[in-house]
Amino acid sequence: MSDVQAVSPALAHYTEGPLMNGLWKRPELSPRDRSVVTVATLIARIQLVEMSHHFALTLDNGVKPSELSEIITHLAFYAGWPNAMSAVAVAKEIFHARGIGVDQLPPAQGKLLPLNEEAENQRATQVGNNFGATSPGLVQNTTDLLFRDLWLRPALAPRDRSLVTVSALIANGQTAQITYHLGRAMDNGLTQEQASEVLTHIAFYAGWPCAFSALPVVKDVFEKRQK
Amino acid sequence: MSDVQAVSPALAHYTEGPLMNGLWKRPELSPRDRSVVTVATLIARIQLVEMSHHFALTLDNGVKPSELSEIITHLAFYAGWPNAMSAVAVAKEIFHARGIGVDQLPPAQGKLLPLNEEAENQRATQVGNNFGATSPGLVQNTTDLLFRDLWLRPALAPRDRSLVTVSALIANGQTAQITYHLGRAMDNGLTQEQASEVLTHIAFYAGWPCAFSALPVVKDVFEKRQK
Amino acid sequence: MSDVQAVSPALAHYTEGPLMNGLWKRPELSPRDRSVVTVATLIARIQLVEMSHHFALTLDNGVKPSELSEIITHLAFYAGWPNAMSAVAVAKEIFHARGIGVDQLPPAQGKLLPLNEEAENQRATQVGNNFGATSPGLVQNTTDLLFRDLWLRPALAPRDRSLVTVSALIANGQTAQITYHLGRAMDNGLTQEQASEVLTHIAFYAGWPCAFSALPVVKDVFEKRQK
Repeated sequence: MSDVQAVSPALAHYTEGPLMNGLWKRPELSPRDRSVVTVATLIARIQLVEMSHHFALTLDNGVKPSELSEIITHLAFYAGWPNAMSAVAVAKEIFHARGIGVDQLPPAQGKLLPLNEEAENQRATQVGNNFGATSPGLVQNTTDLLFRDLWLRPALAPRDRSLVTVSALIANGQTAQITYHLGRAMDNGLTQEQASEVLTHIAFYAGWPCAFSALPVVKDVFEKRQK
Repeated sequence: MSDVQAVSPALAHYTEGPLMNGLWKRPELSPRDRSVVTVATLIARIQLVEMSHHFALTLDNGVKPSELSEIITHLAFYAGWPNAMSAVAVAKEIFHARGIGVDQLPPAQGKLLPLNEEAENQRATQVGNNFGATSPGLVQNTTDLLFRDLWLRPALAPRDRSLVTVSALIANGQTAQITYHLGRAMDNGLTQEQASEVLTHIAFYAGWPCAFSALPVVKDVFEKRQK
Repeated sequence: MSDVQAVSPALAHYTEGPLMNGLWKRPELSPRDRSVVTVATLIARIQLVEMSHHFALTLDNGVKPSELSEIITHLAFYAGWPNAMSAVAVAKEIFHARGIGVDQLPPAQGKLLPLNEEAENQRATQVGNNFGATSPGLVQNTTDLLFRDLWLRPALAPRDRSLVTVSALIANGQTAQITYHLGRAMDNGLTQEQASEVLTHIAFYAGWPCAFSALPVVKDVFEKRQK
């Protein structure tokens, strides 16, 4: 914070006031959820300078090491392998400093959560019909690696996995993918008030334009679910 | 530059010729404006490798330390907090090396520029009607922190603040937000010739595709203002 | 890889299995092409953590030093100058370690490939009519620097130059520019099967959402070419 004071007293003021004593204390999202959203944003955008601080804060806010590990794994698929590898380099130091060993991390493979076969078949059929001829490899991997494997790993609750996904999409301006994943997030237990507050939160970490570009899509999802 | 020669003599050639002796000497934008656009682009995209060089050049081109400080503060909101923090780490070294102390920086808080209440009420009403129910926190923060505070800080002229904002939007491909902010920029005194040249300039620093994706939106803004 | 094991055994598992023994061994793209796509993605997104490893792998997979040099030069224009400069810093070390000197690199200037005047005139006329009044500088530079110079440099085959361009566009979510450049890529010899597999590949390196956002545009290009 003394660095910030030396470059911008105003930014230090906004950080202490509106950000830390304002945003982070709003009741619409728990500190734990805010940390999940923040960490997902940082990894999705490779914002390295804040990563170490927020990985530590995330653990202090109640995210388990196994969950942080799984968030990184999840974002390999949803933000890119090198993004996850950037996070690995930072997390390794924190895990080491806190004595967090492999015994506290999710296993590479293991028992999966039960699959909703009907919903997954419907998704796979729709995507296959639309894009199976365009990129068969991508469509097959999406089924095999994502929806019949990654999403069923028990180390992260589906609601939290969705929160990570939606946060990464908003933070990277990938508005075309928000409709499906926000709907899935709400099916997985994310409330409308929480989803709304994700936008309020991400505006600070990914910039106002990302939040505003997501607004019309989020509005549309909310309205269609109320019918 | 010897590094560039060792990897790509062609890139060194393009840098010395079309970029430094071509683009930067075009009269459509002053070197000071080009530095503002470049710095905004680098912070918006966390292009760290060029940051130190261009922060120093920006000061040499007539941007005051207080203005560079305020550009960083502004981009905390328009590109993301961690983007601003990345810039803080770089600017701190340059400010220190040049003996720039806190007395030369904008105060955390102080007297604000006068607000155009009518225009701001119109903006707030429209955004509130559209999105107040979707994300009340985001909408409230936009009014309180951005348009009734940040934008009124006197450390950066509104025209320059708009130039920073529009540059960040183009550089990050946030085309959906360009219409409002380019209109605002031109209301704040950015000429059409200057706005046009911002595209020419950013193409080099954020890549041609960013500039081309902004072109149809910019064209539309220009045409609507001529009616 | 031991770093990955210490943070996420699952990510290590996905890396060794689906990524390295799955994706990279699929026959739809050669290892050389996969390296080109990967390197373009890393530079386009400044994913520094994987750059050194993949620049070395790219050379091992048959990309010539002159070609890697030219890929970096090309991406200065298509992803941004600072992105190319980030790559320069990494490539310099690898070129030095392997004893690759300037004699193995493309000259700054030299004989160009023949130009298809008719196609280029058509492109230039269309862009000029659309955007010549919006940003004359950008439009002029596009003709002079890109299509009558960069694209004609013989150090990279037009098909590979297109592959780099399309990869960067997909990896950066610049869907509005894919239609033209994918068409050009296929005119330059990229097959539909290869283009399809580029999506499968990039999903891992830029994240699934980038690949899915490109899918409808790619589908449309494929369908229009079959008529």
